[in-house]
Amino acid sequence: MEKTGQFWGGRFKEGMDELMWNFSRGRKADRFLFPYDIKATLVHVKALAKAGILSEQEQRKIESGLKKILDLYNREPDYEEEDIHSFVQESLREIVGVLADKVHTARSRNDLVACDSILAIRDILITLKDKIRGLQRAILEKAEELSDVIIPSYTHLQSAQVVYLSHYLLSFISGFQRVVDFIDWTVENQYCPLTACAGSGTSIGLDAESMARELGLKAPYLNSMDAIANRDYFLDALYIMERVALLLSRMAEDWIIYSSSEFGFLNLPEGFCTGSSIMPHKKNPDALELIRARAGKVIGAKQQFSLLLKALPMTYNRDLQEDKEIFFSTLDELIPMIDVMKEIVRGMGVKQERINEVLENDYLYATDLMEELIKRGVDRASAHKAVGRLIRLSEERGMRLRDVDRTEREKILGIDLSDEEYRAIFSPKRSVDSKRSYNGTAKERVLAQIEYWTSVLS
Amino acid sequence: MEKTGQFWGGRFKEGMDELMWNFSRGRKADRFLFPYDIKATLVHVKALAKAGILSEQEQRKIESGLKKILDLYNREPDYEEEDIHSFVQESLREIVGVLADKVHTARSRNDLVACDSILAIRDILITLKDKIRGLQRAILEKAEELSDVIIPSYTHLQSAQVVYLSHYLLSFISGFQRVVDFIDWTVENQYCPLTACAGSGTSIGLDAESMARELGLKAPYLNSMDAIANRDYFLDALYIMERVALLLSRMAEDWIIYSSSEFGFLNLPEGFCTGSSIMPHKKNPDALELIRARAGKVIGAKQQFSLLLKALPMTYNRDLQEDKEIFFSTLDELIPMIDVMKEIVRGMGVKQERINEVLENDYLYATDLMEELIKRGVDRASAHKAVGRLIRLSEERGMRLRDVDRTEREKILGIDLSDEEYRAIFSPKRSVDSKRSYNGTAKERVLAQIEYWTSVLS
Amino acid sequence: MEKTGQFWGGRFKEGMDELMWNFSRGRKADRFLFPYDIKATLVHVKALAKAGILSEQEQRKIESGLKKILDLYNREPDYEEEDIHSFVQESLREIVGVLADKVHTARSRNDLVACDSILAIRDILITLKDKIRGLQRAILEKAEELSDVIIPSYTHLQSAQVVYLSHYLLSFISGFQRVVDFIDWTVENQYCPLTACAGSGTSIGLDAESMARELGLKAPYLNSMDAIANRDYFLDALYIMERVALLLSRMAEDWIIYSSSEFGFLNLPEGFCTGSSIMPHKKNPDALELIRARAGKVIGAKQQFSLLLKALPMTYNRDLQEDKEIFFSTLDELIPMIDVMKEIVRGMGVKQERINEVLENDYLYATDLMEELIKRGVDRASAHKAVGRLIRLSEERGMRLRDVDRTEREKILGIDLSDEEYRAIFSPKRSVDSKRSYNGTAKERVLAQIEYWTSVLS
Amino acid sequence: MEKTGQFWGGRFKEGMDELMWNFSRGRKADRFLFPYDIKATLVHVKALAKAGILSEQEQRKIESGLKKILDLYNREPDYEEEDIHSFVQESLREIVGVLADKVHTARSRNDLVACDSILAIRDILITLKDKIRGLQRAILEKAEELSDVIIPSYTHLQSAQVVYLSHYLLSFISGFQRVVDFIDWTVENQYCPLTACAGSGTSIGLDAESMARELGLKAPYLNSMDAIANRDYFLDALYIMERVALLLSRMAEDWIIYSSSEFGFLNLPEGFCTGSSIMPHKKNPDALELIRARAGKVIGAKQQFSLLLKALPMTYNRDLQEDKEIFFSTLDELIPMIDVMKEIVRGMGVKQERINEVLENDYLYATDLMEELIKRGVDRASAHKAVGRLIRLSEERGMRLRDVDRTEREKILGIDLSDEEYRAIFSPKRSVDSKRSYNGTAKERVLAQIEYWTSVLS
Repeated sequence: MEKTGQFWGGRFKEGMDELMWNFSRGRKADRFLFPYDIKATLVHVKALAKAGILSEQEQRKIESGLKKILDLYNREPDYEEEDIHSFVQESLREIVGVLADKVHTARSRNDLVACDSILAIRDILITLKDKIRGLQRAILEKAEELSDVIIPSYTHLQSAQVVYLSHYLLSFISGFQRVVDFIDWTVENQYCPLTACAGSGTSIGLDAESMARELGLKAPYLNSMDAIANRDYFLDALYIMERVALLLSRMAEDWIIYSSSEFGFLNLPEGFCTGSSIMPHKKNPDALELIRARAGKVIGAKQQFSLLLKALPMTYNRDLQEDKEIFFSTLDELIPMIDVMKEIVRGMGVKQERINEVLENDYLYATDLMEELIKRGVDRASAHKAVGRLIRLSEERGMRLRDVDRTEREKILGIDLSDEEYRAIFSPKRSVDSKRSYNGTAKERVLAQIEYWTSVLS
Repeated sequence: MEKTGQFWGGRFKEGMDELMWNFSRGRKADRFLFPYDIKATLVHVKALAKAGILSEQEQRKIESGLKKILDLYNREPDYEEEDIHSFVQESLREIVGVLADKVHTARSRNDLVACDSILAIRDILITLKDKIRGLQRAILEKAEELSDVIIPSYTHLQSAQVVYLSHYLLSFISGFQRVVDFIDWTVENQYCPLTACAGSGTSIGLDAESMARELGLKAPYLNSMDAIANRDYFLDALYIMERVALLLSRMAEDWIIYSSSEFGFLNLPEGFCTGSSIMPHKKNPDALELIRARAGKVIGAKQQFSLLLKALPMTYNRDLQEDKEIFFSTLDELIPMIDVMKEIVRGMGVKQERINEVLENDYLYATDLMEELIKRGVDRASAHKAVGRLIRLSEERGMRLRDVDRTEREKILGIDLSDEEYRAIFSPKRSVDSKRSYNGTAKERVLAQIEYWTSVLS
Repeated sequence: MEKTGQFWGGRFKEGMDELMWNFSRGRKADRFLFPYDIKATLVHVKALAKAGILSEQEQRKIESGLKKILDLYNREPDYEEEDIHSFVQESLREIVGVLADKVHTARSRNDLVACDSILAIRDILITLKDKIRGLQRAILEKAEELSDVIIPSYTHLQSAQVVYLSHYLLSFISGFQRVVDFIDWTVENQYCPLTACAGSGTSIGLDAESMARELGLKAPYLNSMDAIANRDYFLDALYIMERVALLLSRMAEDWIIYSSSEFGFLNLPEGFCTGSSIMPHKKNPDALELIRARAGKVIGAKQQFSLLLKALPMTYNRDLQEDKEIFFSTLDELIPMIDVMKEIVRGMGVKQERINEVLENDYLYATDLMEELIKRGVDRASAHKAVGRLIRLSEERGMRLRDVDRTEREKILGIDLSDEEYRAIFSPKRSVDSKRSYNGTAKERVLAQIEYWTSVLS
Repeated sequence: MEKTGQFWGGRFKEGMDELMWNFSRGRKADRFLFPYDIKATLVHVKALAKAGILSEQEQRKIESGLKKILDLYNREPDYEEEDIHSFVQESLREIVGVLADKVHTARSRNDLVACDSILAIRDILITLKDKIRGLQRAILEKAEELSDVIIPSYTHLQSAQVVYLSHYLLSFISGFQRVVDFIDWTVENQYCPLTACAGSGTSIGLDAESMARELGLKAPYLNSMDAIANRDYFLDALYIMERVALLLSRMAEDWIIYSSSEFGFLNLPEGFCTGSSIMPHKKNPDALELIRARAGKVIGAKQQFSLLLKALPMTYNRDLQEDKEIFFSTLDELIPMIDVMKEIVRGMGVKQERINEVLENDYLYATDLMEELIKRGVDRASAHKAVGRLIRLSEERGMRLRDVDRTEREKILGIDLSDEEYRAIFSPKRSVDSKRSYNGTAKERVLAQIEYWTSVLS
């Protein structure tokens, strides 16, 4: 079997096995690298010319050839070769003839593949950041739109206190911001592997620092073996995707629960739900469930990458071809998750009637009652115990906490609150607006957050 | 947006969002289920007829319709519907009209999808077993072919003793056999989820036991909620694939090392290696490296599945759609790994000259020397220490162990061995053939294994 | 540094580094192996005697020595040696002198450690099965106790239909039974590695088949290298634990949700909940949350084991020491999870009042309404659409489905149901008891399950 | 059962179950938090005083009490309470009486635990960085010590070209530096959760920005719910540990291979190796194998953490207690791995004789030959093919590449090299020193790296 693009074949008596050809061929993932292969090659060619290895004319000929290939591929992205690098190389040979081989001077596939990958990942991280930004903006808009809605907050999935829905929503913007900060740092801290060749460097003197600069990278790698063996950039990118997935999965879980029949706070957009063939009333949160499920796939993909790297000998091993497969298929999984979540955020509404019902739960204001006691001089431990006892009493009596009568209240709380004073405590709005601490849920604090994010996200 | 195949749509005012359509649509994996969807439906239709819900004529009409769909699909496997079940349902409606809906009696998508999946997995496990069998056979043939070759065995990657290469090869057949045994057990222990409907069962009395029997399953599920919520069959299948991958990765790792420049025992078939663009002498074990790498992907896929199931509420959740995606893409990964490994086994040879060199390593026979001393009455601890001291002496002298002279030997070993007796110990053949214990490497034991596997695998 | 128990030290000039001593020493996990080390050694000694390598008197002396060590250790389980095997060996030497070394004839630490581990795992799996049995029994008792309670069933966390709580509970017994079946199979399919020595076998002829039989194992390993390299028994055991953990996590998730403020069906035993320092009303399902969390640790531990085995060269490598650490620490994690879940099941109650409220949700009976229409001759697709439209109408009117008046009903459903007939559909009891299919939720089917499990579990 | 430290108990009728007490109690990990609990409390107390909630006298009393507890605990680190926070609280109450409760003003266990954890992790990351620095320094010293040693470099575990051993060693310093950079960034980007209370904030106005500043944190969290729910700091720390473990595992793998009988380059320090009870000549790289194995445990621990977080509802759930267990036990695993690796680096030597043998492998200079041809005007593709053919010829003839005679050489290479010119190519020193590119292995470049790292690491 004669295969194109295998210029390493000189020593081999047999060709490559057909089975092996399919097994080892760069698969879909490779195509993402195409524009970066051209870009890295252009910079390399420039450096070769600067070093006098290519004449000015040769340089121009090659550059024009590479641009032709770029056009060609953009029109018809298909090729027969083993991988994208062979494709570029072969295509170039067709255009400029034997001159194409000179491009390989002071370069091997090892440093080229690494360079392409780093460039691709950097761009993809920037795209991912834009996607996250879009989701953050959608959350921000929803937080503004629903800025008067109050819901219970939960710890242990037990309702705890009341908060503004917008406060709850804004908490996710903060969470995503930490990923964005990490992306920014990662994008700034990438190194250029060119001139590392097969891992020992080369005897040809190219200007490595200029090449790094022109590719927008921080600096050249200090060590050629590290340059070839390192795949931290893939691992970091997968970790970033895992972080996004984890946060999406927490949002999805919450909203599945909040739109369950029994919670019933949220109204998900119908376009992202399905019905049941046998239960015509159901409105299933399928999109959120798929996001939750695929979050697991993204997390597992990061794990696959660690499995790949663990105990891998130095420097390059063919195992590393799979870096791209794992990375790009995970990207394909994650991007639509963000897109869909953004639309769900946009289309989401609340069921105010059900929320009102839930806010009638007196226990949501138990903390407020306790703080009222403390404010009136009861020491903290006693206040805590007293409120606990009052709750138990109301449960035993089968009555609402707010309905316990004044005498009984006084007996347990040790303090006399008028009915008006006592009843006022059970007000959602009073409760939330009292939480004026720096990161608290009071309206003024929520508005401060909204203002902050409006400026950051615009 | 009007989509075909969404017969649950009655309640919804809006159609499904375009983005969501692509996000949620049954992807490639679904197609594997097609023949099983037809099969399960045929059995269900028969049960409906037996229960008098379908007339004999209706039954025949539907059966003929289903067979038409099967033919149709086999010729042109494409459809527009949301998933394969909708496709079958819609196609049937086109052929038999409204009668098609009757097929849904006493059935929901939940039990149907589960049933299809179980049937598919069972068949796939049987195929997987055949693949493993093929690999075992290839190993067996190679073990017979190279039955006289002796190599070092390793623990801690330090050469330990000598063994027949065929003994080493046969150890993998044993390893794979444990997976085969587990497959056999798994295939026998599957249950039929039909009649579970949406998880509560149904008021229609179908003969669940007959249905299970006709589908070749052990019995019906005892509990309809379990029938819908359970995905152990997927998890088991992924665990089985993980087991195969782990064993392949250990083979691959060994052979990569054994064909390294410094070990140099093995000669891998060129069709499964590649060369280097910059180092024309290299013969890289790419196929083995890819097997090792993809083993990590298979292991990680099993992890993805566990991530899917962890803390998933009962009973069915849309998350479970991903079960198929994970499973089938892992299958696509694993099958070629086995195929390629089989060809590598077949094409593998040894480099006898280099092996001869390595067998000259005297330390490989240290145990034999120690056993000789014990046989001659030295207690074990003393024999152990004596051999250790002799080795150190030879190292300090920079001489081979077998060349230590008689006087010095006697001084350290405490026993006088003639030069002939002493030299004889350092014979590979004598060493291996002495290991006659049940599972030892002596020729007679290796032949017994070969005989055993020849009968099992034929 | 002179360390006891290092009888391999003959060749080494330096002792072991102190840091290394602590790094490499068999840690806690080793102690689980102690009784099995004695047991395997006793069988080995018997075989040595049978083969004439030990005299009858020597055999008796060693056996008595081993029993002394067993007593000693049971009274004071501590030792200074590198690991448990060295401890047994050293202790034996103290008791029987140099004769102790003879026990090492035809045995190495490699086959001994493997043998100990297999024996330990088998016993532990049997213990684990007992634990699971205990949990199954607790579930069964609770299912009997609460046999009249009806709750909604869920798919997509949307309430779907009604089921008996006991039907729901019994679904977990079925789930755990699949693990029990796998344990049974695993326990029966273990092999004996003795006589494999360092991986090549031995020249001493011991009766391997008798040894396997006496240790209760299926057969000796066929191949000595496989015997030393194989760790499937650990992997299987961890997979079994993962399966248990996954199921526990699904139970835990459900019950956390069912005891949330908004679902509110379940009343968890207070002894397994905690309160809040700041919200005196809270009753947090801490035990269930810890079970859910630790399930993740168990799943991750299985993953750690796969990471250990992936691409590990043949045969024994010191990496494999970690098998025990991972296994036993996971066991320590899992057993209390089962114990705690059992107590939660035992102490669990329902909040009937809240359940009654929830059962008022008319949509739970939508399927029943649809089936009524079908029973009265409406074709399935029309029935499905009609019910969907009726639901939408009731929602738009802000009224309950059961309150839609006769004329409007007739218009949409196409069939005239009297108020009595129509109202009767919305009865929980009628709904559940109609689901009489094999694995359905009707009382008679639930009782059949209870009867079945009572006989299996007693 | 009456347990100390459960001040949340007011509402509960029953005490906590004994089983549950053991199941839920803060375990060892909690103790790491102790000094940070005191530290965070001191800052909180100061803020309370500043806000006028504590008088100056009360502040002093509490501060002195907290310092007493610190002393007490440092002398005798044991307690009976549920966790370290209860211990501090109870101890304070014993010292300052009911005033202790005032400390809980505007604080809950949720924000306290988060704050303690963040502070602990930051300090631990700094410690981890020091450990890595120590390892980097040891590598640097070894690189200087062995600066003249030349070894083969490997890709695909096939020897490729020659490099300085120090170049190889320095590649790991670069790898670890990327982790150090990430640690630095992480340490600088932590937020203060105080005042978030149970997730809604508090009505008490404390100076959150001062508190953050005094604790050395970047800023307060913007959102109280995020402050309570977020565990990114744990995840990042585990990811950092995973990165370290991955790199250690690659070093370990290499060195296990390089010290195998067949490679035989490296001489590991005996104090970190073991022998074999049955093969007295063996020197097993146990420490490296344990590092490789435990790397898998660290990677798996990171996975456990992701399993914990996936789909966890907002905000705090008891699941999060396990964050500390996973984190601290992983830390306990990793730190000794670094320590041991450092000692191995320090004690490592080379076997120059064996290295010399390996450097005789002519193929290591094939690239040099190719570059010589190119330098003499042969185009790249032809040079590549010619060298490949020459290698095949030498193999067929069973002769060394350097011994092919001049006529045959000329025929294949198309160029006439004198014997002297030809032979000179096969010189290790000439080969390495020619690789003068920025990150190449030439002596001058290696010295530049050494100089750079000497200044960075001192």
